[in-house]
Amino acid sequence: MRQRLVAGAADLVARRGLRATTVRELARHSGTPQGSTYHYFPGGKQQLATEAVRYNGTQVTAAIGPGFEDGPIEGVRAFCAAVRELMVSTDFHGGCPVLAVAVEGPDGDRIPPALGAAAEVLSGWEGVVSGSLVRRGIDKARAEQVATLVVAGLEGAVALCRAKQTVEPLDNVAAQLEALVAAIN
Amino acid sequence: MRQRLVAGAADLVARRGLRATTVRELARHSGTPQGSTYHYFPGGKQQLATEAVRYNGTQVTAAIGPGFEDGPIEGVRAFCAAVRELMVSTDFHGGCPVLAVAVEGPDGDRIPPALGAAAEVLSGWEGVVSGSLVRRGIDKARAEQVATLVVAGLEGAVALCRAKQTVEPLDNVAAQLEALVAAIN
Repeated sequence: MRQRLVAGAADLVARRGLRATTVRELARHSGTPQGSTYHYFPGGKQQLATEAVRYNGTQVTAAIGPGFEDGPIEGVRAFCAAVRELMVSTDFHGGCPVLAVAVEGPDGDRIPPALGAAAEVLSGWEGVVSGSLVRRGIDKARAEQVATLVVAGLEGAVALCRAKQTVEPLDNVAAQLEALVAAIN
Repeated sequence: MRQRLVAGAADLVARRGLRATTVRELARHSGTPQGSTYHYFPGGKQQLATEAVRYNGTQVTAAIGPGFEDGPIEGVRAFCAAVRELMVSTDFHGGCPVLAVAVEGPDGDRIPPALGAAAEVLSGWEGVVSGSLVRRGIDKARAEQVATLVVAGLEGAVALCRAKQTVEPLDNVAAQLEALVAAIN
């Protein structure tokens, strides 16, 4: 049930944002009793959201890892395909909980745990991309720049697809990212 | 006072998201009495947010337009510089209201007005970028792909900068976008 709560939270936060979503809504979306949330996550919404962000990080890394082990182009294709599948299968209602948390930012100067987790997950994804490029002999500094563009471009594409309710922005970004990586490979 | 409300709403929605922000908070953030919100925006939060999104669209277009009239590289530089200034001057608390609205998505199948406005604004920015590339003789289809990557990459960079509380992701994205546009120019 703990795992179902985390997965449900990742989905609902991606759809609606974190700040506007209550623990009650997260429990309902996961089909679990609200009491279970406080049982498994005594730290409340921030704790659940932090785990949801990390869960999404792990899921995405598992989905794109084999591609990037084959090579940067294969990896970028797998990354774009995973985002495309998410957009199409949810009819543009699904999204990325990491993006949702990152975009909302902190209320004050203290960084909430979920936002810190989002930063770590984003760096992890960038590391998967840049590692693949470095293994092909690309200079580390350049590999890191390209990796950031891949992650930022795909996160931005999620926002554009959701706003326009079409997969066209993602297809544009995918074509350009593939071409970019092919050109330096 | 109407204009102050719109500008204040654009800033607060970018910082906190739209769904989690009340009309009362938008009025307070703008330093205007709450009653004025309902006076000027009888359609409530969605109407105010829609105008805030369009206001941000116009502001950004005005900031980057001259650059893109000079050429695609100058334009991309101006676009990146504008985002950088926003990130640094707000200590990574400011953001993009268009991104905030796009990421939250709709509650059901109906597209709320603010989300529709976000889609229009994003397309407008893409048009500024692609127009500049087409004037340099770049094929229209390719110009549109590059334009989407520029807008998505910068919106994604805003999310990464806010999560990591550093301008490094933006600097990485800017370096790669400039190199990309320079290579096809």
